[in-house]
Amino acid sequence: MTIDLRSDTVTRPTPKMMEAILNAQVGDDVYKEDPSANRLEEKLAEMFGMDTALFFPTGSMANQAAIKMHTQPGEQLIADKWAHVYNYEGGGVSFNSGVSCKLVAGDRGMITANQVKESINPPDFYHSPLTSLVCLENTTNKGGGACYDFAEIEKIRNVCDNHNLGLHLDGARIWNALVATKQNPKDYGRVFDTISVCLSKGLGVPIGSVLIGKKEIMTKAMRVRKVLGGGMRQIGFMAAAGMYALDNHIERMAEDHKRASEIAEMLVKQSFIESVEPTETNIVIFYLAKGTSEKRFMEYLLQNNIKISSMGQGKLRIVTHLDYTSEMHEKFLDVLSSASLG
Amino acid sequence: MTIDLRSDTVTRPTPKMMEAILNAQVGDDVYKEDPSANRLEEKLAEMFGMDTALFFPTGSMANQAAIKMHTQPGEQLIADKWAHVYNYEGGGVSFNSGVSCKLVAGDRGMITANQVKESINPPDFYHSPLTSLVCLENTTNKGGGACYDFAEIEKIRNVCDNHNLGLHLDGARIWNALVATKQNPKDYGRVFDTISVCLSKGLGVPIGSVLIGKKEIMTKAMRVRKVLGGGMRQIGFMAAAGMYALDNHIERMAEDHKRASEIAEMLVKQSFIESVEPTETNIVIFYLAKGTSEKRFMEYLLQNNIKISSMGQGKLRIVTHLDYTSEMHEKFLDVLSSASLG
Amino acid sequence: MTIDLRSDTVTRPTPKMMEAILNAQVGDDVYKEDPSANRLEEKLAEMFGMDTALFFPTGSMANQAAIKMHTQPGEQLIADKWAHVYNYEGGGVSFNSGVSCKLVAGDRGMITANQVKESINPPDFYHSPLTSLVCLENTTNKGGGACYDFAEIEKIRNVCDNHNLGLHLDGARIWNALVATKQNPKDYGRVFDTISVCLSKGLGVPIGSVLIGKKEIMTKAMRVRKVLGGGMRQIGFMAAAGMYALDNHIERMAEDHKRASEIAEMLVKQSFIESVEPTETNIVIFYLAKGTSEKRFMEYLLQNNIKISSMGQGKLRIVTHLDYTSEMHEKFLDVLSSASLG
Amino acid sequence: MTIDLRSDTVTRPTPKMMEAILNAQVGDDVYKEDPSANRLEEKLAEMFGMDTALFFPTGSMANQAAIKMHTQPGEQLIADKWAHVYNYEGGGVSFNSGVSCKLVAGDRGMITANQVKESINPPDFYHSPLTSLVCLENTTNKGGGACYDFAEIEKIRNVCDNHNLGLHLDGARIWNALVATKQNPKDYGRVFDTISVCLSKGLGVPIGSVLIGKKEIMTKAMRVRKVLGGGMRQIGFMAAAGMYALDNHIERMAEDHKRASEIAEMLVKQSFIESVEPTETNIVIFYLAKGTSEKRFMEYLLQNNIKISSMGQGKLRIVTHLDYTSEMHEKFLDVLSSASLG
Repeated sequence: MTIDLRSDTVTRPTPKMMEAILNAQVGDDVYKEDPSANRLEEKLAEMFGMDTALFFPTGSMANQAAIKMHTQPGEQLIADKWAHVYNYEGGGVSFNSGVSCKLVAGDRGMITANQVKESINPPDFYHSPLTSLVCLENTTNKGGGACYDFAEIEKIRNVCDNHNLGLHLDGARIWNALVATKQNPKDYGRVFDTISVCLSKGLGVPIGSVLIGKKEIMTKAMRVRKVLGGGMRQIGFMAAAGMYALDNHIERMAEDHKRASEIAEMLVKQSFIESVEPTETNIVIFYLAKGTSEKRFMEYLLQNNIKISSMGQGKLRIVTHLDYTSEMHEKFLDVLSSASLG
Repeated sequence: MTIDLRSDTVTRPTPKMMEAILNAQVGDDVYKEDPSANRLEEKLAEMFGMDTALFFPTGSMANQAAIKMHTQPGEQLIADKWAHVYNYEGGGVSFNSGVSCKLVAGDRGMITANQVKESINPPDFYHSPLTSLVCLENTTNKGGGACYDFAEIEKIRNVCDNHNLGLHLDGARIWNALVATKQNPKDYGRVFDTISVCLSKGLGVPIGSVLIGKKEIMTKAMRVRKVLGGGMRQIGFMAAAGMYALDNHIERMAEDHKRASEIAEMLVKQSFIESVEPTETNIVIFYLAKGTSEKRFMEYLLQNNIKISSMGQGKLRIVTHLDYTSEMHEKFLDVLSSASLG
Repeated sequence: MTIDLRSDTVTRPTPKMMEAILNAQVGDDVYKEDPSANRLEEKLAEMFGMDTALFFPTGSMANQAAIKMHTQPGEQLIADKWAHVYNYEGGGVSFNSGVSCKLVAGDRGMITANQVKESINPPDFYHSPLTSLVCLENTTNKGGGACYDFAEIEKIRNVCDNHNLGLHLDGARIWNALVATKQNPKDYGRVFDTISVCLSKGLGVPIGSVLIGKKEIMTKAMRVRKVLGGGMRQIGFMAAAGMYALDNHIERMAEDHKRASEIAEMLVKQSFIESVEPTETNIVIFYLAKGTSEKRFMEYLLQNNIKISSMGQGKLRIVTHLDYTSEMHEKFLDVLSSASLG
Repeated sequence: MTIDLRSDTVTRPTPKMMEAILNAQVGDDVYKEDPSANRLEEKLAEMFGMDTALFFPTGSMANQAAIKMHTQPGEQLIADKWAHVYNYEGGGVSFNSGVSCKLVAGDRGMITANQVKESINPPDFYHSPLTSLVCLENTTNKGGGACYDFAEIEKIRNVCDNHNLGLHLDGARIWNALVATKQNPKDYGRVFDTISVCLSKGLGVPIGSVLIGKKEIMTKAMRVRKVLGGGMRQIGFMAAAGMYALDNHIERMAEDHKRASEIAEMLVKQSFIESVEPTETNIVIFYLAKGTSEKRFMEYLLQNNIKISSMGQGKLRIVTHLDYTSEMHEKFLDVLSSASLG
């Protein structure tokens, strides 16, 4: 039994999801004739109360396409210094859109309306890039699954309105935020211009993300997906898995969150742990105590068939998910509590 | 019974391929831990006698990634005026790579070594873009499934060697060319630097293309796939379908070719047809006679549940494939021969 | 006495132009405080009856900035196959704007309204780049100084209006066209959205081009000039030379044209000449007879201190200009008529 | 008498510099036949002990071209958060090169070798951009004319060597640094791969910057300058002014520095001033006291025909230069000391 806690992307479809895949109606999505993809897109647009949606092979491409549609080359977007779009999408903001990032020192990946306001370049000072977009992430990845206070998002929306900025949500783990804060997707659909949601993290689908948005921004979505090479054929297999997951895998994330909290509580008690970040959803971020060797800790876990992620500079990450069972959970807590790493 | 002859991309997996999908071993390919994807990549690299291979969501992305790896912004590639990379990839050559195209008037999508030579800009004349890549397509799409004379490709390789140019093959339908000319994939692996092959056309896989290449050019393949948003998760389901197709769907393309020839023969006899291009593989390109209305012809086919493609300016295209059965074939030939479109 | 007929860019300021330079009022143009630059821009906008104008270091940058302002990455422009923007600006269309070119086989660099119409990609077919701009050149450079029939330009404007395309004029030698066809600059200002004009060719200014345009397109002109690195400081010295040239060097181009015609007539009589292109302005393009060695011909001219340009593949170019005196002209005609190159 | 202290870019040529301009030998630099430009480039390459140099219309273009030659799209450069290349070049790093910036919180615009080291992305982690370049600025602009400790630069060079990074100097005001620290340009030529130097700031030339570098990086300099639209014609007029300035305007910058120090001393004594940054060269940066209105202060200066710059958020900047005479200096000190802004 391998316990893989590196990411919630490592999940494999459940038998029932495989059944949905097997029974999927499919067609050629390049012609927009895949009925399952069309249904999934409609369902998500409706869930978020937005105009339209489009399936993408990855969340990175959904984010990059959104950034492209919001901006022109040479412009600037505002994001937290830990933002996935800046740090983990291969430099795509500049590569795909010719856009630069003004990074803000937020709190666990979350920025404030005031920070956004102070980061806007004066629009008539042509030496600096024109600020045209704000990108938020909820929950935050590098920030440890933190959830935004929705009132702050609404204030940011206000700043965007006053300064003519687009507002995009990297919602790779929006499902976790919705479950943790008991919010309605339509709240998000109301304040954001575009939202990317991931089917392959907490939801457990093998492949796929969806970009949901206002129609005036999404006009060129098919073009942008095409030029980035994201126009696939019979994606209905994945869309059907997505439909299944939307119906069956959202509520259960509360279980992932509970286990993550229990892991955090266990970690906090260990002498070899320096500190644990607040754990709100399915991500636990913690730091080893000064004297503890990261290498030795990771090896100890590996000997017990447990994999977790290092984020560099002593920061470690655990992510709970669909394939992390109660049996694994017990074992992992045992392994943690019986560690002797002095 | 709908007969869809618009493209060989419209196929759905056979029951046996679905079985391969169901039984696939999968993992997270972003960590390069998907065993089926890894196996497929190894198998294809070996088939073509090349160093390495990488799975992509689409053939467009595989081509665009290859072009990116071969070139620097501002450079120029040489291709036939009908090339897919110039005409049907959303302007990606310029968008993704900042590269321009020198288009050559080839024969049914195929260009000669002499044409390549004459199209190279003088490397020390810095007003013109530096020529750095040649892209061929085999079989040609807009050229009607034509197959290159391999000796000409070898001459082009020679020109590339003498002028320090890369040589990429858009092999979306290389399988058809291999079957039609009874060649060995290793012949192609020997002369090209990179080759994209498609799993979702003749082979009938729902999603996927693979870029195969020399390791010195492929060094950055993972980076480029990532930045374009092509790094997906459990792609083993599609890779397993690909493995199945490589073992079971290549030889059978001879059947597609035979049916395409029979369609071409039938078309040539019809009074409402102006001319039919030579038909070497699974694509039939033809032109309606002056007096025949394209609209009326297409409607007539649709009334019989038959779909084909218009390529603009009176050019029509039929593509045979895995899902085009002998029963459909008979019906289609009937429908053609009994048309009265005077 | 060296006779340099390679290009009209080789001219040096006349004593009176140097006086204008010496007496120029200057300021820092990055703050838009250079009075001479401001005056020149106003004068040119008024001459062409357009809204606004901006000084650029080069004609290439003026063209590239215009293309950038008219297009978005991934789009396509239509131009003649010999267009300067495609052939001689370093691949800038793709490098700076991510835009591809649909090249048309025009007549001596000039294309027709019908050709434009046929080259527009269907706007709802997202596989192909969206066509968004037409670039004309007048007079044509590689086309041998040919002048457009203005009625054809008006038809092209019509096509642009009907298909929502911008229309840019590369007017590097628009002065020659105006003199040759006795037209008013306001005719051009009426049909084009943007026009680049060069101060350093026929007008004889050391440095500078100006982009003139409609204000809705020029809104971002300062930004684009800045990002390309074209925002210079005390450019008033060059602007003052430009003002002088606009007042004193336009009419005299008739002299350049007359001499070019005389050269063409002399060439046509020589046995070592195959053919001479029609000569409408200050450029003479001709081809050597089969038996004549280009190398020997060029050496013969060099021995007589005469430099002309080779455009490759046996095509030679002569350009008359401000520094080409009547004395030089007599000598050159002599040298041509007494050549013995059999 | 207007006293313009907004920037050292506002200077106009002295009579002797105008004489140099008048007597300049010029030619067409696009053919590399401008003797004055060629001489200036050689002189600067030799001064810095580097291989080669190339004239550019602006410092922004020289920096942007260097960044382009050092990087590939998608890569990342490291710079101080106040770097001119990030803040004041129109977003060019991303627009021209598709490159992102990792910004470091330096001291008055200067970063340390340790900061550089910590900012390098792991080269085998393809989710993050590949770090490939470090850009320093000396003296720093937004940092108030601060001069690097040369030993720190040497340590940064070391980090670059160990991590395969290029090292570029934005030397817009390198002349001020050389004068202030009494260093030899060859010290800089030894540690940097490319250096941009400006002719139009402290040196007082109307137009021009020069990029100096190692030949392996400069190979494509002519191509990059061309594609950015920076290939001008008779630039010898400016190059001749540059030659004059190199011989006559460097040593005199000590005077600018002395005056800047005197201004700083005077400011520090005023009750309406909060603080003054250390003043090492010709830039004085200071902050108004809480109670003092910036608007009122600026108006007071304007009433006395004095212009200075606001850098936003209460930060003000004064720059001394060639055109700031002793008479102006006395008046300015008077105006400052007699201000009553309580």
